[in-house]
Amino acid sequence: MGLLTSAPCAARDFRMTRLRAALLLLCGAAATAVAAPPLQVNGERLNAHLAALAEFGKNPGGGVSRVAYSDADRAGREYVLGLMTAAGLEVSIDAAGNLLGTRAGREPLRPILIGSHIDSVPEGGNYDGDVGSLAAIEVAQVLAEQHLRLRHPLQVIIFSNEEGVMLGSSALAAGFDATRLGQLSQSGKSVRDGVRFLGGDPDRLAQLQRQPGSIEAYVELHIEQGGVLEHEHVQVGIVEGIVGIVDAEVTVEGLANHAGTTPMDQRHDALLAAARFVEAVNRVVTATPGQQVGTVGWIKAQPGAYNVVPGKVTLGLELRDLDARKIEELYRQILEQAQLIGRLNDTSFRFERHVAATPALADPALQALIGASARKLGLSTRLLPSGAGHDAQEIARLGPIGMIFVPSVGGISHSPKEYSRPGDISNGANVLLETVTAIDRTRRAR
Amino acid sequence: MGLLTSAPCAARDFRMTRLRAALLLLCGAAATAVAAPPLQVNGERLNAHLAALAEFGKNPGGGVSRVAYSDADRAGREYVLGLMTAAGLEVSIDAAGNLLGTRAGREPLRPILIGSHIDSVPEGGNYDGDVGSLAAIEVAQVLAEQHLRLRHPLQVIIFSNEEGVMLGSSALAAGFDATRLGQLSQSGKSVRDGVRFLGGDPDRLAQLQRQPGSIEAYVELHIEQGGVLEHEHVQVGIVEGIVGIVDAEVTVEGLANHAGTTPMDQRHDALLAAARFVEAVNRVVTATPGQQVGTVGWIKAQPGAYNVVPGKVTLGLELRDLDARKIEELYRQILEQAQLIGRLNDTSFRFERHVAATPALADPALQALIGASARKLGLSTRLLPSGAGHDAQEIARLGPIGMIFVPSVGGISHSPKEYSRPGDISNGANVLLETVTAIDRTRRAR
Repeated sequence: MGLLTSAPCAARDFRMTRLRAALLLLCGAAATAVAAPPLQVNGERLNAHLAALAEFGKNPGGGVSRVAYSDADRAGREYVLGLMTAAGLEVSIDAAGNLLGTRAGREPLRPILIGSHIDSVPEGGNYDGDVGSLAAIEVAQVLAEQHLRLRHPLQVIIFSNEEGVMLGSSALAAGFDATRLGQLSQSGKSVRDGVRFLGGDPDRLAQLQRQPGSIEAYVELHIEQGGVLEHEHVQVGIVEGIVGIVDAEVTVEGLANHAGTTPMDQRHDALLAAARFVEAVNRVVTATPGQQVGTVGWIKAQPGAYNVVPGKVTLGLELRDLDARKIEELYRQILEQAQLIGRLNDTSFRFERHVAATPALADPALQALIGASARKLGLSTRLLPSGAGHDAQEIARLGPIGMIFVPSVGGISHSPKEYSRPGDISNGANVLLETVTAIDRTRRAR
Repeated sequence: MGLLTSAPCAARDFRMTRLRAALLLLCGAAATAVAAPPLQVNGERLNAHLAALAEFGKNPGGGVSRVAYSDADRAGREYVLGLMTAAGLEVSIDAAGNLLGTRAGREPLRPILIGSHIDSVPEGGNYDGDVGSLAAIEVAQVLAEQHLRLRHPLQVIIFSNEEGVMLGSSALAAGFDATRLGQLSQSGKSVRDGVRFLGGDPDRLAQLQRQPGSIEAYVELHIEQGGVLEHEHVQVGIVEGIVGIVDAEVTVEGLANHAGTTPMDQRHDALLAAARFVEAVNRVVTATPGQQVGTVGWIKAQPGAYNVVPGKVTLGLELRDLDARKIEELYRQILEQAQLIGRLNDTSFRFERHVAATPALADPALQALIGASARKLGLSTRLLPSGAGHDAQEIARLGPIGMIFVPSVGGISHSPKEYSRPGDISNGANVLLETVTAIDRTRRAR
């Protein structure tokens, strides 16, 4: 009966002998044969871990300022590494400073990746990144506790510096531009020094790159960072993809002049033209059906005094959508409007355009698995795009990605006021766990 | 024949004895009896003085940075004081740092005041203030050379710190708020220290105040600082008055949110509301016939990033017109528009209103005299408001004011590119001279 004790099932370093393969079948069958009730995470433990992680870099507003490469970031990562070890994962830190925790699989298959990040924006909250990171570890912990070994290897990844330059995920997916190593991060350290500070090796980043097709799937749980789920009382969001982003720095040139002595009909007021432009952006973006967004988020008028007609205005335009062609069409219409507006008071518009992100679509089969997993758990779902960027968009270069959203109260994020309810977080983690096992059951090596 | 030599006519300290009164009549008659040709200034000398003054605080752009209380300001004033002395004026520096130069009159009448200022804005030009200052001295010089003593005392005043707080003129006219002495001036010195630096006495400013009705007239020559005269090929502008100014700091409150995750219809975008407001200001101001102007000259959006919907915008509104009631009506309409705009995306507007200047109308009789003087010299004229502020608006508290404008090329001012043609400057100085003698002839003590 020794064969039926739990020890072999829980063994971390499980080599594929025939005997052990037979054991695995038994153990696996024990855990998966019963379709109902599905596996459940320990929601109380997960939320307790979230509260504990919130101590690292705690800010007065009740959130965290745990920017990448700060002391708080490093201390938080040490805490998380401890949780990973406790969850029976084989842990390591790679050259990019990513925390990796592997649970071996039963078959020689491509790994299933789950994870997120724990660095925050300055004056950030306790949920963005943290929820997905600790839920991934919780999934591993449950598998360990249930002595459940998947067919695929499972890799939990806590990506380094997501909020800054999405370094960890882009280094894995070969999307990182090494010239950015010299860039100053929010911590005050250069990215290069920051990577070293976390135990990585900036000179070996290139060696990290994985091959496209090398992963079975990547699934990330995240808070929505918007108000759609909460607004519609939906428990789980199935992400259709991560939007592409086109930015442009727009310069409006007019003629600065005395605001008292220049008659209205002789002005070339750059701010008046800019104001018409801001309105036109809103008009163009809202005129087309769809979920696209367009924003003018910053503006500067020069010289900038009560008594001077502004001669020059610069402003920041941003367009986002899942469909790159739609972004292009909106951009074209906006350029056209700018031409028309410039003619009204003889001002000129100049655009410095920058593609900040290309759309990363979630794999349709993974979307379906996430949906089925949520329904199996009795949770309501809806499809929605992710308007915010995530590590998943980088990992999409390597294989199929899926993302699970849980509601953000008030749609607030990147703020100490960011909040997701413990029950929603547990729901999300359960969907993640169910999805991982579903992938493991249904997907095959290609 | 000794009586007919020029010496007595040129005497600076001319006391009213009968003999000398008789002399004066002779000298005066000699200069004024011949109606044509009128007295002429020495335009070449005047423009040479302008060029010499331009050396003090010369900036790389070809203008001057001679801000009040700077070393360049003090050095420029010393140069000007020399010109005043050479013009036979009795000079002094008052408690406000104004340079005063008096030419005694033949009768015990109220003084005729002429003058302007020689301080500049940072990165200013060579004409704003300088033209009126040096032309006033030129007028005194011509009177001295022509041995012409007016009935009224003539006072040439070079006002201190016009560009900053209009200190010199407002101190004379009791409009200076002594709490502003602590304010930092563009020179880096406090106004208090600056006044001392120029040889004034900030503690004795109150004693400077003159009584309303204590002056016969104040006439100031100035460059237009706008493009109306040049645009219409008119040589001399007869100023109808100096516009009143109402400022408001406008705060638009919305809700800052993630620009990627906040759907367009759930935004409370403060910058979109502000843009609609900037357009509305332009629409309201241009919808009514007249010469009123309205400007939004500065704007700040917070937090101010590509990826954040702006939650708060502050901006500066300014309205100017000769008619205070018209300003009020425009302001009322703008408030109404702000209410409507706020309702569109649930943002709120708050106005902090400040009356920066009340309109100061030019005396109609003086306007007529200026017009007649210009026509006598064969110069074309038009009436126009002064959209810019001038010392004259302060002196208007003391008695009738008049202003003469000469064309500014391209309407440029407060810039090294500010330029008025030598011929136009000479024309303006001749009109000033002619106007002064006309006032002296026609106006009576009330």
